[in-house]
Amino acid sequence: MAEAMDVSRLLRLARQFNCFYLHGLHRGECKPFIVEGHQVGLVRSDFLKHLSRYPEVFHVSGKCVELNPAFRDYRERTIKVADVLQKLKLEDCLSPLRGWRDECYAVSAPGYPDLFEMERSATCLFGIQKYGVTINGYVKHPTKGLCIWFQQRSNTKQTWPGKWDNMVGGGLSVGFGILETAVKEAAEEASVPPNLASTMKPVGCVSFYFESERGLFPNTEFIYDMELPIDFIPDNSDGEVQSFELLTISESLDMLFSPSFKTTSAPVVIDFLIRWGLITPDNEPNYAELVELLHVPLRSIYKLPFHKQENGRPDAESHYTNFTKL
Amino acid sequence: MAEAMDVSRLLRLARQFNCFYLHGLHRGECKPFIVEGHQVGLVRSDFLKHLSRYPEVFHVSGKCVELNPAFRDYRERTIKVADVLQKLKLEDCLSPLRGWRDECYAVSAPGYPDLFEMERSATCLFGIQKYGVTINGYVKHPTKGLCIWFQQRSNTKQTWPGKWDNMVGGGLSVGFGILETAVKEAAEEASVPPNLASTMKPVGCVSFYFESERGLFPNTEFIYDMELPIDFIPDNSDGEVQSFELLTISESLDMLFSPSFKTTSAPVVIDFLIRWGLITPDNEPNYAELVELLHVPLRSIYKLPFHKQENGRPDAESHYTNFTKL
Repeated sequence: MAEAMDVSRLLRLARQFNCFYLHGLHRGECKPFIVEGHQVGLVRSDFLKHLSRYPEVFHVSGKCVELNPAFRDYRERTIKVADVLQKLKLEDCLSPLRGWRDECYAVSAPGYPDLFEMERSATCLFGIQKYGVTINGYVKHPTKGLCIWFQQRSNTKQTWPGKWDNMVGGGLSVGFGILETAVKEAAEEASVPPNLASTMKPVGCVSFYFESERGLFPNTEFIYDMELPIDFIPDNSDGEVQSFELLTISESLDMLFSPSFKTTSAPVVIDFLIRWGLITPDNEPNYAELVELLHVPLRSIYKLPFHKQENGRPDAESHYTNFTKL
Repeated sequence: MAEAMDVSRLLRLARQFNCFYLHGLHRGECKPFIVEGHQVGLVRSDFLKHLSRYPEVFHVSGKCVELNPAFRDYRERTIKVADVLQKLKLEDCLSPLRGWRDECYAVSAPGYPDLFEMERSATCLFGIQKYGVTINGYVKHPTKGLCIWFQQRSNTKQTWPGKWDNMVGGGLSVGFGILETAVKEAAEEASVPPNLASTMKPVGCVSFYFESERGLFPNTEFIYDMELPIDFIPDNSDGEVQSFELLTISESLDMLFSPSFKTTSAPVVIDFLIRWGLITPDNEPNYAELVELLHVPLRSIYKLPFHKQENGRPDAESHYTNFTKL
C-alpha cells in the first residue's frame, strides 16, 4: 500500500476538534439516549452509573438509556429531568454541574419539534446537540490589511478560562432567536451598538463533534460576519471577557495554532479564512477534507440507524444494534 | 412519536442532489471497488456483469470488485483499465461511454497519492470521486442589486444538454491545477480575460453524492467568486454554451427550483446564497441540515470501514462486511 501523505497543521487541528466524530463515536462505548423513540444524545459509561440510580426517570438497559416514555409532554419531561439534575448537582460529584447556568437548551431530534429542555451545563453529559452563534468582527485596515478581533475569556469562566476566543459567541437558549442571540451577545460581550450590530451578515454554520474529560460536544455554530470601523474598540460589559485584541491574518493564524486558543472556537476561524480566500485549495493540501471536517453530519449521526423504520416508531433495541455496527 | 416538521423547498433539493448519499448508499446494493487495498469507488450490479468478463483485470467476488493487485504501478493500472474501457466502448452497450472525452481523471484514496487515471466518461460507472471547479460570476448592479450570471448548456452536450448551469464550470483533469483549471475554463466557456480572471477568489467547496440512471456521482466542487463589471458580457468560445443570462437573486431562486436547472449545479448556487447572507437561519427553517448536505463526508464514506485496520493493509473481505452493515 502507498505511503500516506503528510497531514497539514490545519487538518490536525480539525481532527482535534472532531476527536469524538473521528474516534470516540466508532468505539461504541457510549449508549444512545432515547426520548420518545428518537435518539437525541449519547451517554458515556462514567455518567451511566449516576443515571441508573433514578430508574423512575431513566431506563438504563444493556442497549441504551431511555427517558421514561410514560412522561406525557414537554413540560413533564423537562421537570423530571431537572429534578434528577438538581439532585446530582447537590451531591457535587459531577464537575460539569459545578458550572450550573440556570439557562436551558432545547433538546430535539432533527426535523421534529423540541421534546424538552435541559440545564445548559448538563447537556455535555448526555451528548445533546448544542447550537450557538459566533460573530467574526473584522476591520479592513488601511495599512495592515484584513484584521480580525479576538477576545480573551475571563479567568473566572467555568469553561476554557483565560483562553483566546472569537470576538463574540454564545449558546442558543430556549426562547431566543438566532439573530436575536447574536445581537444580544454582541452588546453584552463587546458593547456593539444596535446600529453596528444591524450590519452583521449570516454567512453559514459549522458543525463538529468534540470530546473532553467534561463530556461530549456535538456543536453547530451559526456564523455572522460584521465589518467594524477602525476606531471601534470592543468593550466588555458582562465580566466574561478580560481583553480584546485586533490581529492581522498572519497573527490570527499564530493565535489559532497556539495552545492558548479555545479548541472548539477554531472551526469558525478556519471557515472565515476559507470564505475570505486566505486558506485556498492551492496553499492547503487537505482543503476538501478540511472543509468536510467543518461540517460533519451531526444531524444524521443520531438519525441514520432509524432509516429503515421511518414509517413507524423505531425501537431502541434494533436501533442500538445498528448503531454499534456503524 | 411527534409529527415531523415540514421540509423546505431548499432541503428537498439538497436531498435530491444527495439521493445516493441518503438512500442508495445504505441499500448496500453496490460493491466496493478496491485498488491496492483502498476503496476508491462503488460499482452497481448493472455494470458488474461487464467487468466479470475481464477477470485478468477485475477480480469480481461476492464481496467486492478488486483491480488486479499484481499490476505494479500507476502506469500499468492506467493502461490495463483503459484497455477494458476501450473494448466496452467499441461494444457500444454502456451509455456513459458514448460520451467518451479522451480526458482522464485521477483515481485516489483520500490522503494518498494518485493510484491511476481513468477516462472521464467512465468514472460514474465506478463511483470514482470527481473533482471540479465552479465560478460564480456576479455583478453589483446599481438598480437591481446583486445579480448572478448563469449559462445555458449547449443542446449537443452529452450530459445535461440544454439545462441551465453555473456561469463557468469544469472537471479537474490529470495534469491541471485547481486555479489553473478555473482560469482556463473561464476563458474557454465565457471569454473571461486574464486580468478579470485574476480577481477571482477561492471561497470553499461543496461535496455531494448524486445518482442517476447513468451512474454514481460523488462530487467535490472547488468554488470561486468573481465580481464582474456591469458591462462585461460572457461570450462562449468552445461551443459548449448556447447562452448566458444575468439574473437577480429572486430570478436566480426561480431558476434554481426550475426543472430546467442542472440538479448537480444547485449546491454551488445554494452555497453562494448562504455565504452572501440571502438564505439565512431566520428565513430557512432547515438551515443547519441544508449546510450539512452541501458538505457530505465523501472522504470518509469510502474510508470509514478501514479505521480498525489503520496500521496494516485492510483486507477487502472484512471491509465489505463492515460496509454493508453501515
